[in-house]
Amino acid sequence: MRCTALFAIFIFLFFPFFASGVSEDKPLLGFTQKQSGEQFSLENKFDGLLNAGNLRDWMKRLSSRPHHTGSPHGKDNALYMSELFKSWGYETQIEEFKVLFPTPKTRIVEMLEPEKFIADLAEPELKEDATSGQQQEQLPTYNAYSIDGDVTGELVYVNYGVPKDYEELKLRGIDVKGRIVIARYGGAWRGVKPKVAAEHGAIGCIIYSDPRGDGYFYGDVYPKGGFRSDSSVQRGSVMDFTEHDGDPLTPFTGATENATRIKREDSPNITKIPVLPVSYKDALPLLKALGGHVAPETWRGNLPITYHIGPGPSKVRIKLEFNWDLAPIYNVIAKMKGSRHPDQWIIRGNHHDGWVNGATDPVSGMVALLEEARAIGELARGGWKPKRTIVFAAWDGEEQGLLGSTEWVETHRDELQQKAVAYINSDSNSRGFFYAEGSQTLEKFLNQVLRDVEDPQKKVPVSQRMRAYLLVEGDPAARREVREREDLRLPAAGSGSDFTPFLQHAGIASLTMGYGGEDEYGQYHSIYDSFDHYVRFMDPKFEYGIALAKTGGRCVLRLADAEILPFEFTGLADNINSYTKELLELTNQMREETEMKNTMIREKIFDTYFDPTRTFVVPEIQDTVPHLNFAPLQNAAARLEKSAKEYQKEYAELMKNGKTLPVPKTQKLNSILMLSERSLTRKEGLPGRRWFTHQIYAPGVYTGYAAKSLPAIREAIEQRKWQLAEEQIQVISQTLEKFRDQVEEAGTQLD
Amino acid sequence: MRCTALFAIFIFLFFPFFASGVSEDKPLLGFTQKQSGEQFSLENKFDGLLNAGNLRDWMKRLSSRPHHTGSPHGKDNALYMSELFKSWGYETQIEEFKVLFPTPKTRIVEMLEPEKFIADLAEPELKEDATSGQQQEQLPTYNAYSIDGDVTGELVYVNYGVPKDYEELKLRGIDVKGRIVIARYGGAWRGVKPKVAAEHGAIGCIIYSDPRGDGYFYGDVYPKGGFRSDSSVQRGSVMDFTEHDGDPLTPFTGATENATRIKREDSPNITKIPVLPVSYKDALPLLKALGGHVAPETWRGNLPITYHIGPGPSKVRIKLEFNWDLAPIYNVIAKMKGSRHPDQWIIRGNHHDGWVNGATDPVSGMVALLEEARAIGELARGGWKPKRTIVFAAWDGEEQGLLGSTEWVETHRDELQQKAVAYINSDSNSRGFFYAEGSQTLEKFLNQVLRDVEDPQKKVPVSQRMRAYLLVEGDPAARREVREREDLRLPAAGSGSDFTPFLQHAGIASLTMGYGGEDEYGQYHSIYDSFDHYVRFMDPKFEYGIALAKTGGRCVLRLADAEILPFEFTGLADNINSYTKELLELTNQMREETEMKNTMIREKIFDTYFDPTRTFVVPEIQDTVPHLNFAPLQNAAARLEKSAKEYQKEYAELMKNGKTLPVPKTQKLNSILMLSERSLTRKEGLPGRRWFTHQIYAPGVYTGYAAKSLPAIREAIEQRKWQLAEEQIQVISQTLEKFRDQVEEAGTQLD
Repeated sequence: MRCTALFAIFIFLFFPFFASGVSEDKPLLGFTQKQSGEQFSLENKFDGLLNAGNLRDWMKRLSSRPHHTGSPHGKDNALYMSELFKSWGYETQIEEFKVLFPTPKTRIVEMLEPEKFIADLAEPELKEDATSGQQQEQLPTYNAYSIDGDVTGELVYVNYGVPKDYEELKLRGIDVKGRIVIARYGGAWRGVKPKVAAEHGAIGCIIYSDPRGDGYFYGDVYPKGGFRSDSSVQRGSVMDFTEHDGDPLTPFTGATENATRIKREDSPNITKIPVLPVSYKDALPLLKALGGHVAPETWRGNLPITYHIGPGPSKVRIKLEFNWDLAPIYNVIAKMKGSRHPDQWIIRGNHHDGWVNGATDPVSGMVALLEEARAIGELARGGWKPKRTIVFAAWDGEEQGLLGSTEWVETHRDELQQKAVAYINSDSNSRGFFYAEGSQTLEKFLNQVLRDVEDPQKKVPVSQRMRAYLLVEGDPAARREVREREDLRLPAAGSGSDFTPFLQHAGIASLTMGYGGEDEYGQYHSIYDSFDHYVRFMDPKFEYGIALAKTGGRCVLRLADAEILPFEFTGLADNINSYTKELLELTNQMREETEMKNTMIREKIFDTYFDPTRTFVVPEIQDTVPHLNFAPLQNAAARLEKSAKEYQKEYAELMKNGKTLPVPKTQKLNSILMLSERSLTRKEGLPGRRWFTHQIYAPGVYTGYAAKSLPAIREAIEQRKWQLAEEQIQVISQTLEKFRDQVEEAGTQLD
Repeated sequence: MRCTALFAIFIFLFFPFFASGVSEDKPLLGFTQKQSGEQFSLENKFDGLLNAGNLRDWMKRLSSRPHHTGSPHGKDNALYMSELFKSWGYETQIEEFKVLFPTPKTRIVEMLEPEKFIADLAEPELKEDATSGQQQEQLPTYNAYSIDGDVTGELVYVNYGVPKDYEELKLRGIDVKGRIVIARYGGAWRGVKPKVAAEHGAIGCIIYSDPRGDGYFYGDVYPKGGFRSDSSVQRGSVMDFTEHDGDPLTPFTGATENATRIKREDSPNITKIPVLPVSYKDALPLLKALGGHVAPETWRGNLPITYHIGPGPSKVRIKLEFNWDLAPIYNVIAKMKGSRHPDQWIIRGNHHDGWVNGATDPVSGMVALLEEARAIGELARGGWKPKRTIVFAAWDGEEQGLLGSTEWVETHRDELQQKAVAYINSDSNSRGFFYAEGSQTLEKFLNQVLRDVEDPQKKVPVSQRMRAYLLVEGDPAARREVREREDLRLPAAGSGSDFTPFLQHAGIASLTMGYGGEDEYGQYHSIYDSFDHYVRFMDPKFEYGIALAKTGGRCVLRLADAEILPFEFTGLADNINSYTKELLELTNQMREETEMKNTMIREKIFDTYFDPTRTFVVPEIQDTVPHLNFAPLQNAAARLEKSAKEYQKEYAELMKNGKTLPVPKTQKLNSILMLSERSLTRKEGLPGRRWFTHQIYAPGVYTGYAAKSLPAIREAIEQRKWQLAEEQIQVISQTLEKFRDQVEEAGTQLD
């Protein structure tokens, strides 16, 4: 009977979580049974040292004034944290860089026709929010790395402003050439919007926060609730990071005082057209005045208007001028030397700069990291020493383009590639469910960590709460996977926080993680991302801050002390098999859709369908999608799976026998494991994107933060570059074979 | 290659539509090749007589003043049309009934807490709309057959107010008992909302038009565009027609002057709680004041607020009092006697009463019918006579509950069941795509009609335009079907217009049809459904009025003159097979969902998932869904399919041989075909719904207008009455066997 069968699966899957303390009856990955016991007691001690009051106090202090890149309070925060780390026993340094950081001199958005309107571009002070009135120190609302400009043109609403939105425009005979586009936030990373607009000939770009994005559609707006109010603006970088992240003037090298800098005009990071974010209060008159086609249903937000596309009659001017100065940034780097393997580094980072007061982003994650560091300092004071070196980092300049972390990684690339075992990142954090993305060689490791951290509200393992989330909210495929897969799947890493230079540039195994989903987060990058907002709507008791400290702390402690580094490859192999299937299906689906659409064009189905009283343009015939030779990739993935299982089996046998490896073998093994992620990179990088060396994960050229797995193949297919796709299947297959060699070599150490 | 294959299918399917005049090289169903030629030339003559100017003039006249049930202008319209029919040579009568027709004396909706607000309940005059100022004659905004009442209570937002919305409320621990609910229009027929609310203990019900339903979300509002403006209200009947349609006081019998009437208190048609419709302008303050849970995402409309559920703090009073008078209604019945088979009737109807000026609803369909009748009168004047009797009907009192048509059918039931061949219905009509629902024994017949009517904008057959619509807008299954199925599928009939008493009460094969989809129809049942609105936003050139006249006219002419009545059974058989599969899948899906949900309840997945800072109630364990014995239904459906194909084959052979049947055989055959739909009924009706005798189609108890196919089984399953479902599988299987006997007997006449 199905019912019984389901129940049986449930017993099997969930039993470990129901018995108390069960996590301890299975050895930890990389530890023997005995070592596991010691590790658990260390972690219990660690947990006992954590104190939510510290998180609250530090958040209040760090977010008390605007602390953006280059600000006095930002520098002050760096110095303050540096003193804290020192006081906890860390060898601490502030590493300074000089980066290009534009700030606005002139910001004008005005409508000239059909009526006059001048946008406010201001976020008012609220009596319910103590720091909202610090106008003198607040960065104005703007998009960093917009080019200067003064443009006037008819307005066109382009939905999210991603490539497929322009297909809808084309279908309606609408061209943005010589015009200004207005896009709503969402659908892709904001930097994609001006990039795609410029590619289509637009001369300017406005981005606004529709209430459908993070406003009243979701809940009451600030200060009654936590969601975005009518005047609140999402600042943010629009740096084009297709080619590289970090300081625009120093690609591939650290932006030290005397670094060689390219000219600003030569940087691929600056937008081609001026772009500015506005509130929906400022956007409403512009949108309301648009005529022309009614926007397609999926384009419509929740403003009380009919969404028209234009072009015009709204005619708009944007004038923007920036100070293109270099600004100093301050990374805080705190080290605790490893007692046995000082040259194996476990790095744990969070950024400390905000757009304004940044209580959630980034201070909520930063204070959890500080508390981890404090507790580990305490453990060390009590006599315990980490076997490997622990490095805590508080990055500056993240908001503009991962400046602090990138410049640091570029400066120390060679050393990091020799010494870094893993990088553990966090950023914003709040009440709710755990989420993570990153290197799938750490998937099993992370699953063990999540089994051992308790959800503060439900007193069950956080992994169990994630499963409950997926079972209630997931689609049927996700539900099935939760029932059938041993580990929770770790999604591929995109971008949007400081793991990118580590993982995707330097090939260092990385995780980024946090909690959230039971908050009211509608103040992203506004002045209202404040302490007052945080303690009412995000994580009032800082209990999920403590949960993050427990999670990040366990990652650090286990990686630092494991006898054998806790890398494992069956998860990665399974994911790569999935991606391979996805790409095959994507190609098949594109082929079918192309054929169907071409047939419909030839049959004049569109001509017959279209409303003749409105302009519609029949799409053009597309090239046929060829069958690509996926065999090399499929074979490489299958072989990797086999080797990964072999390694898993050999490791299990070693553990079962309760044996330990001889020291030289352990050293050899750990050295292979530590460097394993590096063999997933190629120094040539991705096609046209040399800085991005990782072959399995990258941020998408047209999605931004969202991950593309097997990116060189996937993006070639999406962009219908069939020859390139064929080539990249070969390239990635070779990379996977190279990686598999490492897995096999690791396996031989276990014999 | 797939591409070629697809193209081949296309050639096969679409070729007939591309060659000109091809429709004529295949004989019409029921006609020999020679007869078909004569019929085509008759239809060409008919087409040539149609004049859009008449439609425009009649619409202007009929909609010039409010013409609701019981109104002076309504009576005047009936007399006017009666004179027209007479002038065209029809034997014309006005048949009068007396029906219960409540009109408002008192209408109050007010908010008492947290602040005072009194709803306007008024639709203002617009200078752009010439008839909008006729306040003296307009029916106020109200729901007919709401009970009187004066209730005060906390407000709860219930989304559409359908049963599954109450599951969401229960999940959040919200009870409507003793409270007033506010529901938005949509999701089900309006009468379902107060019915379900009362079943859950609510004491009052407000229904409002959210802009997400037919307002600014879709396009500019009236008078700039055609969509519903802030003050516009959808009137409408809330008669509970679970048990029967028509006059509440005379179930099963005609509401003649001296009919026996039940007491109003004994009628199952009147609502249990008071209910009133309001505009979104009136709803906004009430909704804005609600607190409590934020409504689930799918519940949120497009008002510029956060949708909360409540209960309260909004406290609301509804006071309603009605005049419960009897009103006279006037059906216009115009007959043209058949020359050969006067006792075989082809009935063609449309209602003439509106809620106010009703230009679209119902005049747009009414004027097309008038023009059909005029042109047929002209043909008759020219010497042609229909073989069968044609009956044109203009029904009164449709808006309150199909009063005119129902009372007429109930009065003449025995005669109709002997004489009626088919009933062809229309109602609102506008620019766009053809749509229909009804008896699938007429599916092939209708497909032939659609092949021969030209789309006025695209100059292709309207069936081809429908196919284009389905290929562009349809889901993959619909697209596949369009490619693979010979005929466009005719959907099952629900309710909402005058075909219901014919089809579902009397078992007369029926079609209801019209054009639409390229209009801006946001004025349903408001004072702005006017001539001025129609000629700007619905069908400015009345060209789709003419298309409807061509379509309805062809249906009438072919049914009237066919040698063999054009019924065909493969379409019905195919649909019944589909429904059988659907029911099996529905049961399997319910079983899986029940098991999954029960397992999740036992595993405490919901407890683990729920946000502990909000109230959530874990759902209760549900009974297991048994495996039902569908075999009798599957066997009956399979046998019917076989017999239907047999009939089709025999008919095709007869036609191929160019033979005609001997007269007695033709007569016998036609008599079987004419009565065939009757054998899909049972005089016992559906369980608990004796008036609804049709076993294949019914309006849903909890959907209203929307059709339920194989309703007795489907609703038993949906309501988890497993025993009843098993019984009804037997009952319907027997009905299908009885029907199949008729098909077989028809087939033997062709030998």
